[in-house]
Amino acid sequence: MTQRVRVHCITVTADGVGAGHDQSFDRPFGDVDPGELFAWAGATASWVNRTEPGGDRGLDDWITRDFAHGIGAEIMGRGKFGPQTGPWSDHEWQGWWGDQPPFRTPVFVLTHHPRPSLTLGETTFHFLDATPQRAVERAKGTADGGDVRIGGGVTTLRAFLEADLIDDMHIAVTPTELGRGKRLWDTPDELTDRFHLERIPSPSGVVHHFFWRR
Amino acid sequence: MTQRVRVHCITVTADGVGAGHDQSFDRPFGDVDPGELFAWAGATASWVNRTEPGGDRGLDDWITRDFAHGIGAEIMGRGKFGPQTGPWSDHEWQGWWGDQPPFRTPVFVLTHHPRPSLTLGETTFHFLDATPQRAVERAKGTADGGDVRIGGGVTTLRAFLEADLIDDMHIAVTPTELGRGKRLWDTPDELTDRFHLERIPSPSGVVHHFFWRR
Repeated sequence: MTQRVRVHCITVTADGVGAGHDQSFDRPFGDVDPGELFAWAGATASWVNRTEPGGDRGLDDWITRDFAHGIGAEIMGRGKFGPQTGPWSDHEWQGWWGDQPPFRTPVFVLTHHPRPSLTLGETTFHFLDATPQRAVERAKGTADGGDVRIGGGVTTLRAFLEADLIDDMHIAVTPTELGRGKRLWDTPDELTDRFHLERIPSPSGVVHHFFWRR
Repeated sequence: MTQRVRVHCITVTADGVGAGHDQSFDRPFGDVDPGELFAWAGATASWVNRTEPGGDRGLDDWITRDFAHGIGAEIMGRGKFGPQTGPWSDHEWQGWWGDQPPFRTPVFVLTHHPRPSLTLGETTFHFLDATPQRAVERAKGTADGGDVRIGGGVTTLRAFLEADLIDDMHIAVTPTELGRGKRLWDTPDELTDRFHLERIPSPSGVVHHFFWRR
């Protein structure tokens, strides 16, 4: 089986915004409300961050339930791991997820400021100063034959799209516009020269965008 | 985790027909063409019976890729296993699937005429004369904590629905009407007193029906 590079459950607004500015320890998504962005996913029975029983099992759940299947490693930008920029002042920060991060695979955090690897529960974070191409090679090598998930944020995802490293991709698009923030795209139609695109409206209000290579 | 009883990828026509009459060794679906019924699934990259690379990765693929995830056992009607009726004249027949059936779990074949269990590849068929309730108990006990899939056909599925044993269910509905054959329902609205129902049209032409308990 060929190892694929996949994107799952990244959510952006109707104008392509996936995160705000002014990220801080209290606000991982900056001045954009992640509760609003991820309401569709949080309502599903299979959402990886669900803590209580219950939840819907309609279309949106078929998307969230596939989050971990077949994935052997994740690559994320430094901003998904934490709000710090520049050299680390110490190594106290261990990410937003507590002692049982939901990834349960090797995770490669792209940063110009590497630090020692860090294991929390079933997840090991590696800090890597590398091009997208090189990061994918490293991640595939540790994925035990599984696929590699590009976990975001949108700036990181753009870099992997520009390097043409993504095989298939699910993006949920909310109906709201923000007019400010970090954008994944001006329009998804930018990508249709390279990808098939299906747009599937969900009863929750988001439109699921499924891309796969032509 | 509670073990659920699930239905995946059963396909019926717009008038609810899931199989024809006059089943034979050459025609597992009788006088209904399974190629037409399952064209939507056969076009996907993840279809369990796919033999060549390729295939779409849009909405329909998100459905077919989940076929085996979390499933620990299947229950099927005798007609899904073979076209024979009444007592077995011998035990030569081993199902339609060759020596590597795609189930890879215990499979319970409901029949009033039990025969010895049969292992092919990673699948073991057990032949069970039991009520739906008792069959679910047996299947859960062998599923190693996984869910139980009710594999059809539609007559078997109706019996499990009537016994109120299904937790959630995916049915694909094609746009064609047949006017004859074995029916799952007169209309899916029969079930909405007990189930939530989402209808999601796919670009392939089928409408995915997702049911889960109220």
